[in-house]
Amino acid sequence: MRWLRYDAADGPRIGLLQSERVHDLTALHPDLRDGLAWLGLSAAVRADLQARALRAPGVPLAGLALLTPLARPGKLICLGLNYADHAAEGGHQAPEYPAFFMRGATSLLAPGAPLLRPHCSDKLDFEAELAVIIGSPARQRTLDDALACVGGYSIFNDGTLRDYQRKASQWTIGKNFDATGPFGPWVVSPDELPPGASGLRIQSRLNGQVMQDSNTRLMITTVAQAIVLLSECLTLEVGDVIAMGTPAGVGYARKPPVFMKAGDRIEIDIEQIGVLANPIADAA
Amino acid sequence: MRWLRYDAADGPRIGLLQSERVHDLTALHPDLRDGLAWLGLSAAVRADLQARALRAPGVPLAGLALLTPLARPGKLICLGLNYADHAAEGGHQAPEYPAFFMRGATSLLAPGAPLLRPHCSDKLDFEAELAVIIGSPARQRTLDDALACVGGYSIFNDGTLRDYQRKASQWTIGKNFDATGPFGPWVVSPDELPPGASGLRIQSRLNGQVMQDSNTRLMITTVAQAIVLLSECLTLEVGDVIAMGTPAGVGYARKPPVFMKAGDRIEIDIEQIGVLANPIADAA
Repeated sequence: MRWLRYDAADGPRIGLLQSERVHDLTALHPDLRDGLAWLGLSAAVRADLQARALRAPGVPLAGLALLTPLARPGKLICLGLNYADHAAEGGHQAPEYPAFFMRGATSLLAPGAPLLRPHCSDKLDFEAELAVIIGSPARQRTLDDALACVGGYSIFNDGTLRDYQRKASQWTIGKNFDATGPFGPWVVSPDELPPGASGLRIQSRLNGQVMQDSNTRLMITTVAQAIVLLSECLTLEVGDVIAMGTPAGVGYARKPPVFMKAGDRIEIDIEQIGVLANPIADAA
Repeated sequence: MRWLRYDAADGPRIGLLQSERVHDLTALHPDLRDGLAWLGLSAAVRADLQARALRAPGVPLAGLALLTPLARPGKLICLGLNYADHAAEGGHQAPEYPAFFMRGATSLLAPGAPLLRPHCSDKLDFEAELAVIIGSPARQRTLDDALACVGGYSIFNDGTLRDYQRKASQWTIGKNFDATGPFGPWVVSPDELPPGASGLRIQSRLNGQVMQDSNTRLMITTVAQAIVLLSECLTLEVGDVIAMGTPAGVGYARKPPVFMKAGDRIEIDIEQIGVLANPIADAA
């Protein structure tokens, strides 16, 4: 099952995606305006709504203005340096424990919306990442039960201002510019993917040219391991998101470096999930 | 004006604090259950509610179970190494640009509630910090207009698991254990304090013994400068919180090191604001 959030005349709506058509769930359940509300329903209620929604003809996906699946994730936790080749291209050793950092909701961006290059930096870079959406609360999980809390998988582009990322020891500010973190285009339920979404080809393409081309099998810390490590320390809540880090091929590590600029188009493609595409524009 | 959030039989309430008595605002405006709703009202509406609330006799502060002023700050952004003496005690140079990192809402803790030492670490440390609560949206501020977005000041104890803070280059996980970030006990409006809350004595006391004793005048990056730097990159939203870093005297840098354990009591005291006190307990 694939669900998404989109903009309608009366505000955001949640819909199911099937065969390039979107079947409105909000018409059946008016409180469903955000992915958090959808994730918070019981599996039985969701199954009933799903069956009823799919009986309607739906509308073409192509005509909809998609939104991020969750307007405001409770926490958005990112793993740095989680592919060995990406750590190496930046001159880092692969960490023994993940380099966790956080992004705030103001950094998120809808599928298709312009990714904004700010006035103060021209070092705007892309990072193709698998996004894990928490579907049930998790604390003190083991590898055996870690994946049971996953509500779905999506795509994240961990857009980064490289100079700001390195202004201090902590990367947070370079990862938190407004409208630099595309998220979506939809959420795929775990039953449609391999366990932990492992073994999926992951690519970024800038203006059609392949920049990153790897496989989620090569993540150093797996989804299950990330959940074990995080839930040792904190409660993962429904609607939290974990961004699983990016493989080699990012712009700053290229010779010469490649940064995104107005008029460019960046696509993140994860096999069996979809394509998250955004144009680049200069901030107003 | 001082406002706080407290727990009542029908859920959280917002009240005004005056002369050790709390005057209920929620009775006058039932939507006021969180500091975010209070901050979102216009100044005129808040002034009217304030005048009406203070006409009622109120209840003694001492009998109330206080909550964090904001249940879920949109963003909680912390500055690392923002006092020169604290940077030096950890062997760091004072950074030229602040080391920003973030905490999630699951790490927050109410005044008086037990600060939890987890099973996996006994390196639980305290950090006395000034908290800045954003009261109006801010983007691209200059030093001249930076402080206009401040809705109030409070106290934060940036509780840290020192070993987890240093497991990787990024400190985030050591700063995000559940229930390790006391926040409160109330919010003081800017008109009651010096500009930028500068020049205030700031202390931590562990079991009554003074551990940190400094002054907010010694912050390397001032409140106004922090707002300028952050708002260059991102939108500060109503209800966002900035924790301004801690002075020297934290536990890990002492010889021998001092860490908090069950039965201890930690107090953070900022002149003209108040005292934020929590007992320490072992996680269940």
